[in-house]
Amino acid sequence: MNVKDLMEHDQNDPLRSFRKLFHLPKGVIYLDGNSLGPAPLKVFQEMETVLRQEWAEDLIRSWNSANWWGLTDRLGGMVAQLIGADANEVVVCDTTSVNLHKVLHAALSLNPGRNKVIAEADCFPSDLYVIEGVKSLRQDIEILLEGSDADCITDLLDNRVGAVLINHVDYRNGHIRDMVSLTRAVHDVGGIVIWDLSHSAGVLPVQLKNCEVDFAVGCTYKYLNGGPGAPAYLYAASKHHSECNQPLIGWFGHVRPFNFERSFEPATGIRRFVCGTQPILSLRALQAGLEIYQDTNLNQIRKKSMALTQLFISLLESECASWNLEIHSPLEASQRGSQVSVRHPQAYAVMQALIARGVIGDFRAPDLMRFGFAPLYIRYQDVQEAVEHLKQILENEEWNQETFLQKATVT
Amino acid sequence: MNVKDLMEHDQNDPLRSFRKLFHLPKGVIYLDGNSLGPAPLKVFQEMETVLRQEWAEDLIRSWNSANWWGLTDRLGGMVAQLIGADANEVVVCDTTSVNLHKVLHAALSLNPGRNKVIAEADCFPSDLYVIEGVKSLRQDIEILLEGSDADCITDLLDNRVGAVLINHVDYRNGHIRDMVSLTRAVHDVGGIVIWDLSHSAGVLPVQLKNCEVDFAVGCTYKYLNGGPGAPAYLYAASKHHSECNQPLIGWFGHVRPFNFERSFEPATGIRRFVCGTQPILSLRALQAGLEIYQDTNLNQIRKKSMALTQLFISLLESECASWNLEIHSPLEASQRGSQVSVRHPQAYAVMQALIARGVIGDFRAPDLMRFGFAPLYIRYQDVQEAVEHLKQILENEEWNQETFLQKATVT
Repeated sequence: MNVKDLMEHDQNDPLRSFRKLFHLPKGVIYLDGNSLGPAPLKVFQEMETVLRQEWAEDLIRSWNSANWWGLTDRLGGMVAQLIGADANEVVVCDTTSVNLHKVLHAALSLNPGRNKVIAEADCFPSDLYVIEGVKSLRQDIEILLEGSDADCITDLLDNRVGAVLINHVDYRNGHIRDMVSLTRAVHDVGGIVIWDLSHSAGVLPVQLKNCEVDFAVGCTYKYLNGGPGAPAYLYAASKHHSECNQPLIGWFGHVRPFNFERSFEPATGIRRFVCGTQPILSLRALQAGLEIYQDTNLNQIRKKSMALTQLFISLLESECASWNLEIHSPLEASQRGSQVSVRHPQAYAVMQALIARGVIGDFRAPDLMRFGFAPLYIRYQDVQEAVEHLKQILENEEWNQETFLQKATVT
Repeated sequence: MNVKDLMEHDQNDPLRSFRKLFHLPKGVIYLDGNSLGPAPLKVFQEMETVLRQEWAEDLIRSWNSANWWGLTDRLGGMVAQLIGADANEVVVCDTTSVNLHKVLHAALSLNPGRNKVIAEADCFPSDLYVIEGVKSLRQDIEILLEGSDADCITDLLDNRVGAVLINHVDYRNGHIRDMVSLTRAVHDVGGIVIWDLSHSAGVLPVQLKNCEVDFAVGCTYKYLNGGPGAPAYLYAASKHHSECNQPLIGWFGHVRPFNFERSFEPATGIRRFVCGTQPILSLRALQAGLEIYQDTNLNQIRKKSMALTQLFISLLESECASWNLEIHSPLEASQRGSQVSVRHPQAYAVMQALIARGVIGDFRAPDLMRFGFAPLYIRYQDVQEAVEHLKQILENEEWNQETFLQKATVT
């Protein structure tokens, strides 16, 4: 397709109206929505309301009058719609890592006699640190990793498996794991499955309930556009609510918090997974991000996502074949999340040169450039322009400058 | 003192210039800063900057360019100045309850052979839930409570004590515990002490380092005016950093987070206590609250705090002697935090009637009205007016109405 065709493609895009709901800086092609989504325009007004009216004017009364108290549950209900769960099975609170601590304990509590925890060696490393943290409390736990102890999770399954933690979409290469078959395989040996949806929710249909998933966690500042460090979500299948236990308890999860009782009695339902008082301002910003999704169709989003990543790969192959690029994501669209990762020996410097030109993706050690394609605001013409910039950078060795070679704290 | 004297007192108040740094709604006398502080005027501009420039315009780059990455530590350094700690001993992150989970584990890890945890039966209940949560992971732990197992913490101390958790100022009655003598007593038996500073930091001088305190936690949305549910802080004496262990680990506490290594290796220093990605918007609002404190003198604040609470008690005694009020806070100012609690059989309804008149305090079950006096924005004349309203409400039984008697979700 030539540029004119791509612009026509954008004209006919059924999702084209969503782009104008975001603030996208002039001169920027933002291919890092898989790391931090852009600001929804509505968030500015929303924050004015919560700052100037709810906090400044109404003060403490807003816990009731603005229902700050119910915010974790209300936002949980909005996330639930995106991941195929019931509203009372999802709550928004804390961070992905803290929520993972909770659900891993909860999962193991359902299978007290079992001591194996399985994960992917190449999953997001914080997930591995959480497992390490839980193991520090239970010396009997044995950690087995796909990609290190065996080629595939299924080879590690037996009747000593307590919990299996799987990243739905790989944060490096964008590979999608099959939720249906893996969940079934774990259940077949009596294990409990936990899915980390950080890189899938919002860009592809997720069906937790249909797949009979036990627990899930995920991040809201990527494709859900919740703002920097926005609180995370936690899903627990309703059948587990009253059976499981997790140690991160606190007054926000008490059944009668304002009775100030000495003993903990968990709230009924998903609320028991909340521990302390939650950051209302960050939650309210997230609300603006989630509201955009109320009018979307995830099948439509997924369709465009596959088309965008496919176009990017095709253009890389046709335009950038002369340089040392290696596509590190699945070439089959159905296996690929909404990102394409590309290897290059100077990946860090090349990415800095791209950013200097306004094409923002990111770098993951040691040699990966990641490009995320969020279908709600990325156009086909953006993909073409991004590849054109990349081509010029490689052609002129524009990346080979001191300023691009030196690494910043956050990469 | 008559009204004219009080206004003169306000004129001569060395802290009078701070009041204009806050948004205080018209017609409101805000005596609930011990629960949720008012909005600093600067927060509106600060949030414009973080929303419109750092997030919306600069996007992912702000992790470096706006130093979002260092925010937990930078704010920690600002809190450190208020609690007598070194900058590298305090970090702002997560919630008070989650931080308490961390430091309780850390404290017990320093004394692996000891299994007793001591706390106050009447401390903020979430603190007790945290101890319960830790005990659920270590069945050998024995919990002993002052006010239930003995009259005083010191009666419970022996060489099996691992950790002692003490609330610096009691959330109900405002009673101050003696940090010097209690810390020494715990250390004398080889125990580790944890102080919860939620109701003391910002209204009285706290000297963690001078008192050789091991760990502390606290909340920032009360006297520190950080905004609803603002992230909490965690203090760990530097000598413990490399010796202690806590299980709530995650990538933000890794020594090389952007190497994405499979094994956890804690950051040096206080950063190891951070787990997942923190809510930047809420942190930035807190920054505005903490900046106000940069120009304050805590001895001056404490002096005014004692004068305000003393005036309130004196006026209650002179103006409201005819009704069933019982002062539930220490009558000796040196023993009292910055709040006065008053018992009344219809405390909830009386407080609702006060709120309807614009005098905002709060209620704690079963029969307590709490009045907080934040010296940075409360005037002596506010105290007089508040008592006048209370008197009229009691005189006319104004509280005895359906609308005031019915309890809301959050009290």
